Amino acid sequence: MAKVAILGFGTVGSGVAEVLSMNAASIASRVGEPVEVKYILDLRDFPDSPYADRLVKDFSVIENDPEVSVVAECIGGARVARDFTLRALKAGKSVVTSNKEVVAECGDEFLEAAEECGGNYLFEASVGGGIPILRPLGTDLAANELTEIYGILNGTTNYILTKMIKEGVPFDTALAEAQDMGYAEADPTADVEGHDACRKICILASLAFGRHVFPRQVPTRGISSVTLADVALAESANMRIKLLGRTLRQADGKILAYVAPHLIPEDNLLASVEDVFNGIVVRGNAVDDVLFYGRGAGKMPTASAVAADILDVVKNQGRKVGLGWAPGGDDVMGDLDALPMAWYVRGTGTVPEGSKLPQGARILGCDEAPDTWAFLTEPMTRRELNGCLEAFSETFVLPVLA
Amino acid sequence: MAKVAILGFGTVGSGVAEVLSMNAASIASRVGEPVEVKYILDLRDFPDSPYADRLVKDFSVIENDPEVSVVAECIGGARVARDFTLRALKAGKSVVTSNKEVVAECGDEFLEAAEECGGNYLFEASVGGGIPILRPLGTDLAANELTEIYGILNGTTNYILTKMIKEGVPFDTALAEAQDMGYAEADPTADVEGHDACRKICILASLAFGRHVFPRQVPTRGISSVTLADVALAESANMRIKLLGRTLRQADGKILAYVAPHLIPEDNLLASVEDVFNGIVVRGNAVDDVLFYGRGAGKMPTASAVAADILDVVKNQGRKVGLGWAPGGDDVMGDLDALPMAWYVRGTGTVPEGSKLPQGARILGCDEAPDTWAFLTEPMTRRELNGCLEAFSETFVLPVLA
Repeated sequence: MAKVAILGFGTVGSGVAEVLSMNAASIASRVGEPVEVKYILDLRDFPDSPYADRLVKDFSVIENDPEVSVVAECIGGARVARDFTLRALKAGKSVVTSNKEVVAECGDEFLEAAEECGGNYLFEASVGGGIPILRPLGTDLAANELTEIYGILNGTTNYILTKMIKEGVPFDTALAEAQDMGYAEADPTADVEGHDACRKICILASLAFGRHVFPRQVPTRGISSVTLADVALAESANMRIKLLGRTLRQADGKILAYVAPHLIPEDNLLASVEDVFNGIVVRGNAVDDVLFYGRGAGKMPTASAVAADILDVVKNQGRKVGLGWAPGGDDVMGDLDALPMAWYVRGTGTVPEGSKLPQGARILGCDEAPDTWAFLTEPMTRRELNGCLEAFSETFVLPVLA
Repeated sequence: MAKVAILGFGTVGSGVAEVLSMNAASIASRVGEPVEVKYILDLRDFPDSPYADRLVKDFSVIENDPEVSVVAECIGGARVARDFTLRALKAGKSVVTSNKEVVAECGDEFLEAAEECGGNYLFEASVGGGIPILRPLGTDLAANELTEIYGILNGTTNYILTKMIKEGVPFDTALAEAQDMGYAEADPTADVEGHDACRKICILASLAFGRHVFPRQVPTRGISSVTLADVALAESANMRIKLLGRTLRQADGKILAYVAPHLIPEDNLLASVEDVFNGIVVRGNAVDDVLFYGRGAGKMPTASAVAADILDVVKNQGRKVGLGWAPGGDDVMGDLDALPMAWYVRGTGTVPEGSKLPQGARILGCDEAPDTWAFLTEPMTRRELNGCLEAFSETFVLPVLA
C-alpha cells in the first residue's frame, strides 16, 4: 500500500484525491499495490468532505511520517510551495506537482535535492495540464536531438483570441466572458500578459536543452495589445493570431526562448487549436515534428497528470528518473534579436510619408480595418527589422510562424 | 556499454543504426552509457556499408552472445520475426520492434515470454511511427480509465484521400501517385484495404483495454470503394472522409473495434490531419480527449521510436515495464452492430420509389455528383440502419464521427 499526502485542497488537490479514488481499482492493478491518500494539508476546514478525517494543518505531520512516500504539491505560488517541497525531498520523499511557477523558478534546485536524497521530483502537470508532454520528451523522444518546441501553452488567452477571431468580440469583452466562464481569474495578469506561458516555455526549454532557463531571461509579450484590426488583417492573409511560447537550440548550443502572439498560417494545425485547448509542437532531428493536443488546464485533466506522476513514483520506487536539467546562468541564452523570422507590422492612419517598406514586404488591407496599415515582411532578424522601422513611429510588431 | 543487435537492414533497421550513431553523444549521456550496434542480421551483403563488419547471416550468433542485451527486430512479417523474437526473449534478451503485424498477432505471447525470461518486449514504433502513443497510454494516462481510441493510423491511405479531397483526383490516380512517391507499395493491399490500420487498432485496443484483440476479430473496410462523389457529398455537409481505426470499451467490459472510412466534421482536428501524417485521439475518464500527431511512417521517425525503446530497455535494465495485456478469446469482443452512430448512405441514380428514409435523415446533394443520392442519418445502430435500408438496393454506407 502506497501512502500519499496532498498539499492544498483546492481545485487541483481535490481533483487528485478524486482521480485516485474514482480509478482506484485499475490504478492498483497497474502499479501492483493500492495507492491511498493518507493526509491532505490545508489551512481551511472541510467538515463535509469525505476526506475530513485526513485533513491536517501542520506540514511536519507529513514530513515526519515515514509511511508517506509521495507528496503531491498542489498549493501553487513559489514561496510556501518551495519550502514544503524542499522539506519533503530532504525527508526522502518524492514530490510531484502541477505548480509551474515553482518549477520554472526552482526546478534545478529540486531535481538536485531529489537526486541527493534518493527521491524523485516530477511535474508533468505543470505544462499542458493533462496532455502528456514532459515525460515523452525524456522517453519516447530520447533518441532525438531536440531542436525546437513551440505551442499554445495557455488556455485562457487562447479562449479570448478564439472569441476575437470567431465572433469579432474585442479583447476586453472576451476577457470578461472568460472570467464569467471561470477560465480567467479576477486578476488576469498572469494569463493575459503571458507570464503563465512564459513559465511553461521555461520548463520545456530547461528539460529539452538541459540548462535551467528562468522566466526573467525570456522576453514575454501577452495579448492585451492585440486588436480586432490585427485579427482582421491576419485573416486577410489567411492567418490567425495565437499566443505562442517558443524555444530553440542554436547550433552553438545557446538557447532562445520567448513568448509572443504570432500570426500562424490557417493550414498549420496549431491554427485549429481553439478555445481553452493547448497544442505543443516538438521538433527532433529524427522524428521531425510531433504535436500533442488536449485540455491544458482544468481540475480533472490536471489531476490526471499529477496522479500519473504519483503512479510513476510508486511503480518505480527508488529508481531515479534522470532528467538532464543542469543549473542556469548568464551564459545559457543566445541572441534573440539575431533570429530570422517573418514579421507583421501594423500602424494606425496612413503609412507615414517618406517611409520605405522593407524589401519584399507585402501590404495587408481589409474592410474591417480601414484606418490601419499593416505589412508582412520576408524573414529577417529583429535587429534588421528595427533598422527598417526607424522612419515609422508607433508600430505594433508580431512574429509570423513560417 | 550496451550492445544491441538489429535484425533486418532494410529501411527501418538502417534507420535505427543511423539514429544511434547520429545522436550517440546525447544518447550516452541520457542513458548513462554508450549504446553500440554489435550485430546487424541480414541475408543480403552490404559490402559498402559502414556497418559491413557487423553484418551476420546466422541468428544464433546473436542469440548466443551474452553481451547483446537488446534485439531490435526490423524484419517485418509474422513468420521469421516471431521465431527470432521468441528465441531472443528466451535467451534472456529484451526485444523491441516496429513490426505491427507480429505484435498484433503474437503480442500477448511475447509479453508472457518476456515476463518469464526477465526481459522486456516494447513496440512503440508499431503504431504511429515516431509519434509517442503506446508509452503515454501506460504512463502519462495511467491514472485514467481509458474509454475510447480512434485515429488516422495509416499514412498511405491518408495521402490518397488528401489527394482526392484537395485536388479532385480519383482513387486510382491518387494511388498511382502514392506509389510514385514511395508512400505506397507495389502491392498496396495491406494499406488500401485497411489491414495495416487494423493491426494498429488491435495493438491500441489490447494495450488500452488489457485483452488481446486479433485482426480477425476486427471488421475492416479500406478506402478502395470511396469515390469522388463521396468526397463531394461529404464536403457539401462540411465533412471530410478519413480512414479511421476505432476502439471502445463498453460498460460491460467488452471491447469494440473496427476500421472504416468515416465522415468527419471539418472542425474536428483530425479533419486537418493531411498527407502521410497520422493523428490519434485517446479518451480517458479524467483527462478527456488527448491527441497525438506526427509522421506515422518513414525511415527516421520510425527509427526514432525503435531507438527510444532500446534506450528505455538499457536505462531500466531488469525493471519490467508492466503492460497489462492478457490473452484474447471469443469472449473479448462486444456487438458492434449495437453501437449507435450516425451514418452516411449513398446510392446511384435516383432514390428508389417507395423507399422511406430513416426518421431525421438529411438528404445531401451537390453539383459534382448529380446522378448520386445520399443522406446522413441520426445516430442509430447498424442493425437499425439495416432495417431501414431493406427497400434500398446496393447502398454504400460509412459511419459518421460525431
